[in-house]
Amino acid sequence: MPGGDLHLANVRTADGARTEIVVKAGRIAALGTDADGAGATRIDGNDDLVLPALVDSHLHLDKSMVGLPWHPHAAGPDRTSRIETEKRIRDNLPLSVATRAGNLIERLVVHGTGHCRTHVDVDPELGLSSIEGVLEARERYRDAVTVQIVAFPQSGVLACPGTIEVMEAALGAGADLLGGIDPAGIDGDIDGQLDLIFTLAEKHDVGIDIHLHDGGETGATEVAAIVERTKAHGMQGRVAISHGFCLGDIAECDADRLIAAMAETGVTNVTHAPGGSSIPPVKKMHEAGVAIAAGNDGIRDSWCPYGDGDMLERAMLIGWRSNFRTDPDLELAHHFASQGGADLIGISDYGLEVGNRADFFTIPTETVAEAVVRYPQRSLVVHGGRIVARNGLYEGTA
Amino acid sequence: MPGGDLHLANVRTADGARTEIVVKAGRIAALGTDADGAGATRIDGNDDLVLPALVDSHLHLDKSMVGLPWHPHAAGPDRTSRIETEKRIRDNLPLSVATRAGNLIERLVVHGTGHCRTHVDVDPELGLSSIEGVLEARERYRDAVTVQIVAFPQSGVLACPGTIEVMEAALGAGADLLGGIDPAGIDGDIDGQLDLIFTLAEKHDVGIDIHLHDGGETGATEVAAIVERTKAHGMQGRVAISHGFCLGDIAECDADRLIAAMAETGVTNVTHAPGGSSIPPVKKMHEAGVAIAAGNDGIRDSWCPYGDGDMLERAMLIGWRSNFRTDPDLELAHHFASQGGADLIGISDYGLEVGNRADFFTIPTETVAEAVVRYPQRSLVVHGGRIVARNGLYEGTA
Repeated sequence: MPGGDLHLANVRTADGARTEIVVKAGRIAALGTDADGAGATRIDGNDDLVLPALVDSHLHLDKSMVGLPWHPHAAGPDRTSRIETEKRIRDNLPLSVATRAGNLIERLVVHGTGHCRTHVDVDPELGLSSIEGVLEARERYRDAVTVQIVAFPQSGVLACPGTIEVMEAALGAGADLLGGIDPAGIDGDIDGQLDLIFTLAEKHDVGIDIHLHDGGETGATEVAAIVERTKAHGMQGRVAISHGFCLGDIAECDADRLIAAMAETGVTNVTHAPGGSSIPPVKKMHEAGVAIAAGNDGIRDSWCPYGDGDMLERAMLIGWRSNFRTDPDLELAHHFASQGGADLIGISDYGLEVGNRADFFTIPTETVAEAVVRYPQRSLVVHGGRIVARNGLYEGTA
Repeated sequence: MPGGDLHLANVRTADGARTEIVVKAGRIAALGTDADGAGATRIDGNDDLVLPALVDSHLHLDKSMVGLPWHPHAAGPDRTSRIETEKRIRDNLPLSVATRAGNLIERLVVHGTGHCRTHVDVDPELGLSSIEGVLEARERYRDAVTVQIVAFPQSGVLACPGTIEVMEAALGAGADLLGGIDPAGIDGDIDGQLDLIFTLAEKHDVGIDIHLHDGGETGATEVAAIVERTKAHGMQGRVAISHGFCLGDIAECDADRLIAAMAETGVTNVTHAPGGSSIPPVKKMHEAGVAIAAGNDGIRDSWCPYGDGDMLERAMLIGWRSNFRTDPDLELAHHFASQGGADLIGISDYGLEVGNRADFFTIPTETVAEAVVRYPQRSLVVHGGRIVARNGLYEGTA
């Protein structure tokens, strides 16, 4: 893993322009065909496209079984069965949370992801154990990926007494945000769960990211309640709704009202392009001013067997579900998996510009659109100016 | 491309059993841990899974722009615009149909596909030119893949006078089946189109495969009409409905009646797991006795920019859209992309058994389910006993 200055030659940017990139002290020092790479290690980009690091805005690093023998999916077809099955399995896994999270981080990195937001389970039974495991992995992989942690009440807040106290303790331990989950579907008390979470978030001055699977009118009522509280607590721009399937299955006029309200209060939608549920109308939402980000969600865990940590595959799924075919539409799917996530997580020095962090990857495709529809193996992945993966193999710290 | 005897050592079959495979004269001569490979070229399978060749049951080899510079999608969002746009583009492409079809065939082969059914456009303007191009590619790649050709009236039959005559000429030139397309949506005359096609099919004793995009009650009426004619013309087991989106968007009780009728008459459904339309309930249909096959449909053409010819990615999409998570469900998605297609196309000596054609591939996954959700690069692809691809690179004839 070379840590010195780099000179990436013979690459093309998203607009098709030929460029060279010179990296010094972890940042982009020069860009363009006349960039001076004297003294830096020269790497030939083989005419690949170079793109800023991908951003995975919704992960579950603590749940993944990457690195373990194949576990056939064991849960029934409903949310409650998945929660119960996970509890039964998690205590008997032969690898620690930190090791499994690290294994998945390495998969993210080889696919060019440089920044991620992970939800991590907290409940009175787990206490802070999963949070601590992910914190350990975050520290170990700090030179390969940025990890933002959401204290996530998987089993509910009111439905699982004692959880809100563990969530508060998680913030003290190093978690960055508070999570939530289906205030109606899991807790049966929309106001009850949201009041607890928003009050705690305001007290600690942290953001919120709420899992919302509830569909139809129930989900719509929850979206409206989240928007209301975002305003009431002065948290504009700091709240996200993950999933929000309801936005894709309610009447269009009702969805339009919620979309306008989300845009006005800066409530982000994070999608994983569900296959079996409706997907929110992300293009329309984007055009209406709603910030959209994208995440892989569960990867090889008790919830979901799919995936290998590739945010370009996820952009493909978003495009596929949204019927995107034109280049601008495919570029929008890529935007959700890159700049949209950087905006959500708050990576201020993101993007291929001089002075920004040197977080980027190269890929043998002609255009961004082709990278979305075909997502071949990344050739080179650079994070903070260091090479962390090459041709599908992880080369970073571990 | 070694054409002699092969001894593939150190692989595992779908049931997890360790095995060796000995290939002689293009067929599987021995299977099992005690298979005698004396005299054959030994290849180490590196503990990979070995699976029978994938089958792509719905392709458009003539339309693909694989091998050309990236073409941004140029059509509007409706079927008519796509048909018109394609006509505008196809005459000015710098590579012939045969070359483009061959380029896509090489992508199929590196992903382990050994057999495919392609629809090929015919109309009075094109005449047999696209059919002849695909026939040329079929001949050139005959040692790498089996190609079955459907004479496909992309612009309609009644809506495009003279097409039925070209379809009949295509059968004389080497096409294997007759196609059809939305008798209501394109021709505006369900009986008119179906009568022409079924009469011609019966006359020439060939099968039928009809594109059915029409949704809702219109599509349901067409499915019923196709089933009726299948019976009337004694074509049980020789008719397929490609797409059939309507089966996923009509009332369940209506769909159930159609599904029972399809099962009774042996009408196959071929799905590509649409992202923006409803997918037929393929698991329920399979359980009801309907034969299901799967295909990639358009790959990098005027209709669709997605895909690279990988039927395991397609199995993933079928699973994703169908909410498949358990191993048996993921194996079912794989079944549609393998045995289901072999049944449709009529590959009688298909599968990993002694005496059958040596058409198989190896993949570094633990289980079939993992191959579906992660679909990594195929290590080795063998067709008719010859190595035709290795580690993503085509090695067959061309």
